[in-house]
Amino acid sequence: MRELTLHDLRDLARGAALLGTGGGGDPTIGRLLVEAALADGGRIELLDPDELAADTLVIPTAMMGAPTVFVEKIPSGEEGVAALRALEAHLGRRAEATMPIECGGINSMIPLVVAARTGLPVVDADGMGRAFPELQMETFGVYGIPGSPMAIADERGGSTIIDTGPDNARMEWYSRGVTIRMGGASHIAEYAMTGEQVRRTAVPRTLSLGIRLGRTIREARERHADPFDALRAELADTLYEHGRIIFEGKVVDVMRRTVDGFARGNAWVSAFDEDERLELHFQNEHLVARVAGQVRAIVPDLICVLDAETAEPITTEQLRYGQRVRVFAISTPPVMRSPEALAVFGPAAFGLEDAFQPVESLT
Amino acid sequence: MRELTLHDLRDLARGAALLGTGGGGDPTIGRLLVEAALADGGRIELLDPDELAADTLVIPTAMMGAPTVFVEKIPSGEEGVAALRALEAHLGRRAEATMPIECGGINSMIPLVVAARTGLPVVDADGMGRAFPELQMETFGVYGIPGSPMAIADERGGSTIIDTGPDNARMEWYSRGVTIRMGGASHIAEYAMTGEQVRRTAVPRTLSLGIRLGRTIREARERHADPFDALRAELADTLYEHGRIIFEGKVVDVMRRTVDGFARGNAWVSAFDEDERLELHFQNEHLVARVAGQVRAIVPDLICVLDAETAEPITTEQLRYGQRVRVFAISTPPVMRSPEALAVFGPAAFGLEDAFQPVESLT
Repeated sequence: MRELTLHDLRDLARGAALLGTGGGGDPTIGRLLVEAALADGGRIELLDPDELAADTLVIPTAMMGAPTVFVEKIPSGEEGVAALRALEAHLGRRAEATMPIECGGINSMIPLVVAARTGLPVVDADGMGRAFPELQMETFGVYGIPGSPMAIADERGGSTIIDTGPDNARMEWYSRGVTIRMGGASHIAEYAMTGEQVRRTAVPRTLSLGIRLGRTIREARERHADPFDALRAELADTLYEHGRIIFEGKVVDVMRRTVDGFARGNAWVSAFDEDERLELHFQNEHLVARVAGQVRAIVPDLICVLDAETAEPITTEQLRYGQRVRVFAISTPPVMRSPEALAVFGPAAFGLEDAFQPVESLT
Repeated sequence: MRELTLHDLRDLARGAALLGTGGGGDPTIGRLLVEAALADGGRIELLDPDELAADTLVIPTAMMGAPTVFVEKIPSGEEGVAALRALEAHLGRRAEATMPIECGGINSMIPLVVAARTGLPVVDADGMGRAFPELQMETFGVYGIPGSPMAIADERGGSTIIDTGPDNARMEWYSRGVTIRMGGASHIAEYAMTGEQVRRTAVPRTLSLGIRLGRTIREARERHADPFDALRAELADTLYEHGRIIFEGKVVDVMRRTVDGFARGNAWVSAFDEDERLELHFQNEHLVARVAGQVRAIVPDLICVLDAETAEPITTEQLRYGQRVRVFAISTPPVMRSPEALAVFGPAAFGLEDAFQPVESLT
């Protein structure tokens, strides 16, 4: 167990935006919510998965919706607690810890807000190892944990409990409908599970990884080193072993629509000195990067658009014409590349016809 | 307390279709579900509101969605019980009776299916005194009962609990979103209340009224009398005092779309011998009938399209070119014409600019 500091938070916001692979919402909003909760006297304790008792009840918390809406509809910080309390009341049991469902953007921060406001510890792990747009795309579900019952809270004290038994895709479908009618953003508590189930199904230590990666970028800048080299070196001894720049250039076009509760679209990056263009396709998160029709990186590997100089991550809703960027791809951990995992969040799950190819095998 | 017979059911199906004012779905489907439950050994006991103990827990049950979908997506008869059980589990209390939320079409029958399958009695009352398209449009809510928490069940064992506190319009908004994603039709349990609250807020004895009106039409046909005269006479000593034919003619056009979870549209009836057309506007139920722009009847009064010869009610989804019809308007009980009631389900609640005018004051 270790306590999270304000210093950690700034590094985590940067690292989580990186791991969020374009999605997960702007972590700055999340960081401000955590800081407000800390200013109110809260503390945040980070718990390693190995520190959990086998029967500890862990209830993950998160925001749901389109990141394009998160920036318009800023939460008060109480909604995540309301979702947790609604699920506790329905289960008739109290949570003993919370946890992120994804490591990315605002959803690395929401469980910290809940922790600071309730006194619960946060487990250093998550259910996506990155950000994904849909709730069935969690390693928890891939390895047999039902997401149901889940709770959804709006900002006006309203709540919804959805129970679709073992059918996590249907849970996603219904809860997205409710979230759209809550204005496109909601807070959720789902995949309630035991400490043993966390150890068996979660991607471990991704909060501390986010802090490490954010710090790596910051420290490289401070000593005027190349943050991309530093990132690559830092990743080498983690579960996210391979990091590489797959393209450099200028953002020349972005097409983005908030549709069916998601931010969907494409972005194009033109190379600085060659007549080459990279096309990015996203659904909240980047799904595939292609040059002249050839895949350079594809889901579930991470595709991160970073400022070409500072390596500051740019989320999909922040993409703008003229940004000078480097597109950095990162290999996902083996637990996210198993046949079971690829069936749930591999390319076909997003309607892509390309097969998954590990980024380290592509040049 | 009296037991409902198979004979009653056929009369009720006809009477409920009449009171459903074009909406509420085809009661024939509901009647078949009730008959199947009775054939399985069920019994149905009808309980007068005056027979309820003050603290008896009554949980109304119904179908939700567009009637155009009900005819495509026929229920098994178990879903209403599933919704009731989901709400009971959430409340931690068992229902002691069920009740219709509206008297109209299939929703006069669903509580009977639930009653036959659970052994619970059905209260002879409802929350609309007719059919309305939205859940906040219930006399229960008008007079202070929250619809929340409500349960929604799909046909695959999935359930949703929605709790928006006292905000029944928001409960409608969220539950409609879930129902659309359940395929456009669902089963619900809501407005859980005590016997005392039933007596204070429900429109009383509308199931027995439906049986009476259905029987009146049948018996008039059997003795070759005019069923419209018989209806008018039968209504005179009820809370629905005034019944009158406001138009006769042939259906010449129907425009109908299933949109946002509702069957919305217009129908036009051309007079037999004059150059006059009646325009009907509906959202599941008929809302207003106009001739040359002049209102002939308007919500919440009942506008019923009946076969011109047999007085068989025709629901909005059954309207077809060429049908020879009489449009019969019925005055609603005073409890449904109060300022509080008109604020919730008067013309303005449907976006109509006309003021409410009692049908008995219009010629």
